[in-house]
Amino acid sequence: MKRIRIQIVGVIETPFREPAGCPIQPSRAGGAEGTVRVDPRFADGLKDIEGFERIWLTYWLHRASCSTLLVTPFLDEQQRGIFATRAPSRPSPVGLSVVRLLGVEGNILHVADVDMIDGTPLLDIKPYVPEFDCYPNSRAGWFDDSSSRRCLADDRFDR
Amino acid sequence: MKRIRIQIVGVIETPFREPAGCPIQPSRAGGAEGTVRVDPRFADGLKDIEGFERIWLTYWLHRASCSTLLVTPFLDEQQRGIFATRAPSRPSPVGLSVVRLLGVEGNILHVADVDMIDGTPLLDIKPYVPEFDCYPNSRAGWFDDSSSRRCLADDRFDR
Repeated sequence: MKRIRIQIVGVIETPFREPAGCPIQPSRAGGAEGTVRVDPRFADGLKDIEGFERIWLTYWLHRASCSTLLVTPFLDEQQRGIFATRAPSRPSPVGLSVVRLLGVEGNILHVADVDMIDGTPLLDIKPYVPEFDCYPNSRAGWFDDSSSRRCLADDRFDR
Repeated sequence: MKRIRIQIVGVIETPFREPAGCPIQPSRAGGAEGTVRVDPRFADGLKDIEGFERIWLTYWLHRASCSTLLVTPFLDEQQRGIFATRAPSRPSPVGLSVVRLLGVEGNILHVADVDMIDGTPLLDIKPYVPEFDCYPNSRAGWFDDSSSRRCLADDRFDR
């Protein structure tokens, strides 16, 4: 089994202690606020980040259950392939969320729209750039047929 | 130094053999086509993915030079913090690109708008969902002031 080694560059602090009750996505997080503590060794890498309204956080889904290839996502009632969902129990448990950047103090970022568990290990930060990231009319498979207004996770993917 | 182990779930094949000459982002790739070969062990995880027009690829930037915290990005002439750029020489070398999904054949995905090097190790696939991912008016720092029309990388981040 091929594996690579990835570095943890900080920690994400949020109001959510357990998977159950955590927002399912930033867009359904109701503005929940959190803090990104970047390891001071990497603080110089935050230069100029304050100009960005949103940032991508890439993080380790450290509480996700072991990978299953078919899952019933929070917003649907049918089993879907894991790669056709954003569910956390993935072969490589890497999470991806775009959060609003409220402010920067040294190695600390104040953010809103957090949807991860308190203490989540941070792998990377990238700026959100609409030219690179925004495709408003992109067809979205089963999600386009979902009328679920659900905002919070349950414990189905907790380990 | 804290590190975690992430699994390689496939490989991305593209027309680009070297970092120099590779598109800097999918939006500037001119529609370049590639193939994502998912390890057959994970093929069941692709169920339902064909309904999505675009997918996120998360991958290992295996040819990126060692991390530097300040970089001059391709679209600017000033040094910026690495976390305020999409440059590949990151502390955790995880790449992120949204590509168009053209077709699915078993464990093979045909895609367009590829901006990674041929042979790039794939870490994860996620569906692109406009409600989760699209913020068209998000302010984008130094990038908003860049008038560069540059599309192709040079070898500045090659190891």
